[in-house]
Amino acid sequence: MASDDLDANQGGNKDKKTYHKKATGDALETVKKHSKDDDLKLFGSCFCPFVQRVWISLEVKQIPYQYIEVDVYRKPQSLLEVNPRGLVPALRHGDWGCYESTVLMEYLEDLNAGMPLLPKHPQARAHCRLWSDHINRHIIPGFYRFLQEQDQSKQVQYAEELKTEISKLVDAADPHGPFFLGQNMSFTDIQLAPWIIRLNRVLKPYRGWPEPEPDTRWAKWVKAVEENEYVRATTSTDELYLDSYERYAENRPNTSVLASAVNGGRGLP
Amino acid sequence: MASDDLDANQGGNKDKKTYHKKATGDALETVKKHSKDDDLKLFGSCFCPFVQRVWISLEVKQIPYQYIEVDVYRKPQSLLEVNPRGLVPALRHGDWGCYESTVLMEYLEDLNAGMPLLPKHPQARAHCRLWSDHINRHIIPGFYRFLQEQDQSKQVQYAEELKTEISKLVDAADPHGPFFLGQNMSFTDIQLAPWIIRLNRVLKPYRGWPEPEPDTRWAKWVKAVEENEYVRATTSTDELYLDSYERYAENRPNTSVLASAVNGGRGLP
Repeated sequence: MASDDLDANQGGNKDKKTYHKKATGDALETVKKHSKDDDLKLFGSCFCPFVQRVWISLEVKQIPYQYIEVDVYRKPQSLLEVNPRGLVPALRHGDWGCYESTVLMEYLEDLNAGMPLLPKHPQARAHCRLWSDHINRHIIPGFYRFLQEQDQSKQVQYAEELKTEISKLVDAADPHGPFFLGQNMSFTDIQLAPWIIRLNRVLKPYRGWPEPEPDTRWAKWVKAVEENEYVRATTSTDELYLDSYERYAENRPNTSVLASAVNGGRGLP
Repeated sequence: MASDDLDANQGGNKDKKTYHKKATGDALETVKKHSKDDDLKLFGSCFCPFVQRVWISLEVKQIPYQYIEVDVYRKPQSLLEVNPRGLVPALRHGDWGCYESTVLMEYLEDLNAGMPLLPKHPQARAHCRLWSDHINRHIIPGFYRFLQEQDQSKQVQYAEELKTEISKLVDAADPHGPFFLGQNMSFTDIQLAPWIIRLNRVLKPYRGWPEPEPDTRWAKWVKAVEENEYVRATTSTDELYLDSYERYAENRPNTSVLASAVNGGRGLP
């Protein structure tokens, strides 16, 4: 095999697993349904959780869109026109484009099309945004710090830190649930959902992340997210995540801008 | 002087400068105007730039509010009821409370009272949020990294990085200005304004940060922010900033949660 056929993140070793370039399972069905040209285009990569946030939002809202799969190591010009940094998710809407998953979720909300993801009351909206901010600044960096850490004693510490940050979120959620605000999945749930999916499919096999304690509020939440039809419609088969995250779990160089930021001790890129 | 009279961040040395506990100059006049009890209460500290964001927003919108000065090392119970972490800014509105400056700015916007800070069109709103995100994730951490760094060769590197991130923002702004979207100060300007104020009052004296090149788009923006009546109404005299940031410039222990996060290589707390 010529070295050209290897991905940079395989580190020259063809036996190493790498990210998938095509969705599988339910997500593949959704990709096929949204392959036709549309004014609204989501540039995404099938394994990327930030993409999945925007993807779930589009599915919940049932806004027509075209899904364009992007190989993040071979960024197409059409993506670079929307986001010069070439990061996904990126959205093109007519001749306008934007990026950053939270910004895009707010954009879809501002379109006033389909199911709203934020409640109407300003205080309830602030509550959702406050805890989305907690997810972005405490839970997600904690997830990658734990996954990329190679030292076992530090892994124990980072697992505890991640659990603590998740507990704070659970304490802020509606006590009955199953979702953050109650019966319906909304903005804050979608911000977290891709990592709930990856706790079981990535952190469990690579780091021994435990199943939720039965009959807890957290267990109820995880189950509701796993069973949600829009989450399922954007989720591939387990193998895709297991393969795609091996490079993070081994903390290989060139894994991603995000992995490098975590290694370099800076915030999310 | 008994050691009880020293602040933790003075490191036991009474000759060290510490943060101010009372606004001065124009900001003090504004504090006095907003000292009466009101349903909407802003918990703030006069030197804190995250507080100043919310404070400017309230002034622009001319929403009635009460300003409550908080000594961040002696957090009052009334603040801890709103934010258990005791960080400012925090807002209390009736029997409800919230915190995090960006979340609070979105909240004030959602109240639909006074001057809107975000434009109406969804794409223009996304543009403002995208570049606010850039300020929060690239410019502000870069500001503190540069200010807290003690090694001179690293200071040179961090100064360049900060300039680069500011340049990206300037390139994304309306070409005529003077503000981000054009003639009027809006959301993204207010997100940045407190650090523009501190470039000249903190980074210049402590790190030799240069004046903007004359006749540039950046010079025009800085001037417009410095001269804006609402920015001025929430800005104290130069000495307050010079004193309050000495502890950052010397990177003393116990300076702030933010300073520790920067030292520990994590994102903003």
